[in-house]
This record gives sequence, C-alpha cells and structure tokens, in this order.
Amino acid sequence: MTTEQSVLERIERARLRKARVKEERVTLAHGAGGKATQTLIEDVFVDAFRNPHLEAMTDGATLTLNGTRTVFTTDTFVVSPLFFPGGDIGDLAVNGTVNDLAVCGARPMYLSAGFVLEEGFPVADLRRIAASMAAAAAEAEVAVVTGDTKVVQRGKADGCYVNTAGIGVMERDVTLGAATVRAGDAVLVSGPIGEHGVTIMLARGELDIEADLASDTAPLHEPVAALLDAVPGGVRVLRDATRGGVATVLNEIAQAVRLGVVVDEAAIPVAPVVNGACELLGIDPLYVACEGRFVAVVDGERADAALAALRGHPSGEGAAIVGHVADEPAGTVLLKTSFGGTRIVDMLVGDPLPRIC
Amino acid sequence: MTTEQSVLERIERARLRKARVKEERVTLAHGAGGKATQTLIEDVFVDAFRNPHLEAMTDGATLTLNGTRTVFTTDTFVVSPLFFPGGDIGDLAVNGTVNDLAVCGARPMYLSAGFVLEEGFPVADLRRIAASMAAAAAEAEVAVVTGDTKVVQRGKADGCYVNTAGIGVMERDVTLGAATVRAGDAVLVSGPIGEHGVTIMLARGELDIEADLASDTAPLHEPVAALLDAVPGGVRVLRDATRGGVATVLNEIAQAVRLGVVVDEAAIPVAPVVNGACELLGIDPLYVACEGRFVAVVDGERADAALAALRGHPSGEGAAIVGHVADEPAGTVLLKTSFGGTRIVDMLVGDPLPRIC
Repeated sequence: MTTEQSVLERIERARLRKARVKEERVTLAHGAGGKATQTLIEDVFVDAFRNPHLEAMTDGATLTLNGTRTVFTTDTFVVSPLFFPGGDIGDLAVNGTVNDLAVCGARPMYLSAGFVLEEGFPVADLRRIAASMAAAAAEAEVAVVTGDTKVVQRGKADGCYVNTAGIGVMERDVTLGAATVRAGDAVLVSGPIGEHGVTIMLARGELDIEADLASDTAPLHEPVAALLDAVPGGVRVLRDATRGGVATVLNEIAQAVRLGVVVDEAAIPVAPVVNGACELLGIDPLYVACEGRFVAVVDGERADAALAALRGHPSGEGAAIVGHVADEPAGTVLLKTSFGGTRIVDMLVGDPLPRIC
Repeated sequence: MTTEQSVLERIERARLRKARVKEERVTLAHGAGGKATQTLIEDVFVDAFRNPHLEAMTDGATLTLNGTRTVFTTDTFVVSPLFFPGGDIGDLAVNGTVNDLAVCGARPMYLSAGFVLEEGFPVADLRRIAASMAAAAAEAEVAVVTGDTKVVQRGKADGCYVNTAGIGVMERDVTLGAATVRAGDAVLVSGPIGEHGVTIMLARGELDIEADLASDTAPLHEPVAALLDAVPGGVRVLRDATRGGVATVLNEIAQAVRLGVVVDEAAIPVAPVVNGACELLGIDPLYVACEGRFVAVVDGERADAALAALRGHPSGEGAAIVGHVADEPAGTVLLKTSFGGTRIVDMLVGDPLPRIC
C-alpha cells in the first residue's frame, strides 16, 4: 500500500464518522460554507429536524404538493459592505435564492423577503436595496409576494440583513443529485470563478488594490434551462458555487457519491485580477465564493453539447470543462496542477473571507 | 356636524393619503407592527415589489401552483431574551409561521429555517433552540425541510436571529379576507390577550415583578380548523394578534373594509397579572403581542357556534365574543369602555415593547 493510499483511507474513515461540533461557541468558520458549516448543520440541525428532505443536504428541498413537484429553499444574506461593484445585498438576496431553485432544476417563481434592520439604518439605503431586489426579481421573472421587517436596537445588528426564501416548480422531468453521478462524467463550471468574493474583499478597502472587477451576481435560471434542454437526461447534478467555492461543491459531490473528482487546474477559468488578489491574500480561488456561477456534472459523452449550451448564454460565455469523475480516489477531489503535479483539494476549513454573502 | 364626526373625517382623509416614510432613518417603531411598520411596508416594499399578492397586506400570500392553492409566508424573530417562561426563540419561530399559514386558512406543511448567529454564541444554546423548533414542528405537524446558517462577527448581531418561511396548502374551499367582512359580523378573540408580550417584558427583569405568567406561544392550526369546520362559509377573516396586538389587527380590518369595529372592553379576556403589568408600564393590553391568539370575524348569526368551536379546543378555552362590525364609524375601531364611555382605538404608534418576537 502506498503512503498516499493509506492517507486517503484515514481521511475516508474520518469522513464516515458522525460529524460532531467540538467547539463550545460558534465561530466564523461555522458560517463559511465549508467543513465547519457542514458539521454544524449535520450535528445540530439535521439531527434535530430529522427528515429525508433535510438529510439530502441539497440547495433546496424537493416537495410534492398535491402532485406538483415543488422546490423550497432559503438563504440569509449578511454581506459586508452592503453595496459593492456589480451589486448590493438586495440583488444578491434575490439571485442567491433564484439560483438555489434553478440548480435544483426548478423554475423559480415566488420569493419571500425578511429584513432585520438596525435602528438608525438610512431609509434611503433601504429604498435602494428594495429597488435592487425588485430589478433582480424582474430579471429572474419571480415575484416577491410576502415579507417581514424587524428592527433591533442600535448596535444589535450591522445595518441590514436580508433573508429570502423561494418556491419553484419542477417543469421538467429531471432527477438531479449527486447519487446519479458516475465515473466518466464531465465536470463543468459555467464561467470564471471567484469574482464575487474578491470583489467584496476589495470593496472593504483592506487591500490597497484598485481593480476593474465586479461581482458575478446574476440569475442562473436561463443557462440552467439551456443546459437541461441541450442534454436531456444527461445532467447529473448542478450546484451554485457560493460559500466555500468550487472546491467545497466538488468535495460535497465526491463525498456523497464516493467517487473521485479529478480537476485540471489549467482548465479552470479565473480572471487574472482574481488570481492576483488571491495570491496577495494567500487564498486559493477554488475556495472563493461566486454568486452567478455553477458547477455541472454531465454525461461525459455529451460534455461538448453541454458546454456549447452554456456558452450560448451571455452568463455562460466563459464556461469550461474543468475535469471528470473517476472511480478513484473515492470521496476525494484531486487537482492536476499547472506544474504537472497532483494534490488533494479538501473542503474549505476556516473562513478566510467572512460575510461574503 | 358634531365635533366627533369632523375628527373622524380628518382621520379618514389622512388615512387615504399615500403612506410616506417621513423619517430619514429606521426607528424601532418601524419594526413594532403598528402604524410606522405599515407605512414602511407600503411606501418602501409594496411600492418596489408591486404585485397583487403583496398588496393584499395579509399574513401570507395565496398562490396557485399548478392548480393547488398554496400559502407562502415568512417571519424573522429577534426576540430578547432568547429564552423566556413558556418558550424560546425556537418554538416562537415555528409557531409564528405556522400561525400565519393557519390564519390564511391553509394547512401548514413545510418550513425553512434561516439563522444569523453571532460569533461566540454558545453551541449548547443553539442545540436548545433547534430542539425547541423540532418539538414545535412535531406538534404543529410540519417539517423543517431546508435551512441556512450565517455567522457574523462578535458585536455585529445579538446572539441569534431566526427566520422561518412556510408553505401551506388550502385544503378547504374558503375565501378569507377583510373584503368579505360586513356589518353585523361578530368579532372574537381565541383567548386571553397580551400574555406573550408581558412575559417577555417581565423576563427582561426591568420591572421588579414576580408573576406566574408564561408566553401564550402555541400553534393555532387546530383551533382554526375547528372554527372553519364549525361555521362553513361563515368565517370572514382570521388574523393572529402578534406585533401591534389586537388593536392593530382590528384597525387593519376596519380600514381595509371601510366599516366600523365596535369592541366591548369588558368582554375582552385579559389575565389580572397582564392587566396589572400593563398598568405599571402605562400601556394598553390591546396593543400587546400574543403569539398563540387570533382574532376572528364571523357571521354574526353564527357567533355562538364559532365560540363553541373555539372553546372546544384547549388553546381556545378562553375564547370570547368581544364586539361586532358596524356601518359606522367607517375605518375606525371604537371601544366601549368599562365605565360606559366610548373611545377611538387607533393602531399602535411608537414601540413600547421592542423585540417582543
């Protein structure tokens, strides 16, 4: 047995153990979308609310309401700053939930909006956020049909938090999910990665970088529909690569299906400015959140058709085939580096970029 | 024209004007559920998201999904303290959304849960909240099927906020809404009012009162179902009396239908300890939030059957007929006081009890 195999076996045994939160107090990592978030959700919430919808650990729950396959999802947005190049908390909150519905295969239809406002928050900023939500909802062809507003005392929140929940209807007869993934499938991303996360970092002004970069926040229902129609029956699983980035999404897929995901670093589309900022920050763009990109695993024989369908849509112009699914190493993501080496890409640990969405 | 009439006419003219937020910054009153909240919602949100579902200003939106009448609602909970006699933020968050679905006439089915946690929040408290949500969900026969967790830095939130959104299905052929209310209808409350709000005030320890009082937080789907079945076609509108209390709910009904609501103070069930605490606080129990009580407007000729149906359920034992709908004074709630006088009861103005839910 090679050393690498023995390491992989130990990693696998650790993964099969029941996740337990070891910390006594919540840390920022519990909200980062990586390993700590997964552990918190499995140990605290899935354990308490035990039901098959939640245990699926997908972006939304697929329910049957009087025979109609319906998807239900929720997301809270705590991004800081509230306004940034390319968007604000308002369109982020709409697109985020629209995209969770879209990657479940549903047509997004209705959203709710729940606001927590800090006493003293400028009403003009709230109007701007509402206008931005309305514009994003119009673009995504959804309606914000119900809402709630709470106000907490000065100092008890950080300006404005927005929760959106969403309902979508499964109009196509598709079954998406990691369980359908098999060796030989192709892995695609719908465009250059990491632009949202890096934009937020730069907008905080902590780095002295001026860059021509904007958030990738965008609704994904149209490129998803184009993909589903182009390779009917050939799409295995779709995931929007938000918190935790592409690396975390690929790990979740690899772990769920107990197969390997092999990614070619040179094939991953990353804008030079994103690469540069990530080098300065000492982080890997594979872990940086996107808000308008998704990962698709598709039938390997139809990968080119899938790629063409994505590239045919403005928000999928930069799509690329970045890797494939293999029998080994089970439950693991392997990166073939640009230098010809190979390394394991684990889930995000810690939180290098808090409050990115 | 009497002076009273002229005052009423001026009030009415003011009400018919488009609501405008005059403040430059959000105040606690904007979250109190009364007049300021209504103005904020109408001016900022309804104006931005304009659609008939939102304009209905009901507790939830009634949608048609592939022919299935479905209700969708959301509520964020920022109660302080998080744990209090009779409940905590967890069961409050489940019951609050269950009740919004129930008073729309729907059977509550699925909930989402969105958490905003402050860095450093005790994991043990989060487990306690999740367990409490799970127990409340089991009692209300709903499943928490999807969720989200965000963490913000220490000092950027106040421990834990919980958003729940909910989906329910209209199983009965009922049409509820203020538009169906007519003169001669009876007004009922499902039990003693104000117990939740006063419990929270006492739990804060700001008043030096020891009282044997617990929150009224409870799911209302069963007493609502009992009422709808007891007087088929006879229930006009149901509203849970949360923020803003019974007075605000009655005002919203009176204004929506342009009729008068006449309430008999002596008939309103209020526990002596709630009355006592309200006197000390200088507030009127009619404005204090309940989390397990609702207001029902029913066909006046079937008021006794409605009352019997409510009283037949444990959480409706204390139900009472408290008033009736009249042609005059249009858009106004009149209280016949215990001393034989009459006074106008307006919507809640300001926020005497912030962060009650």
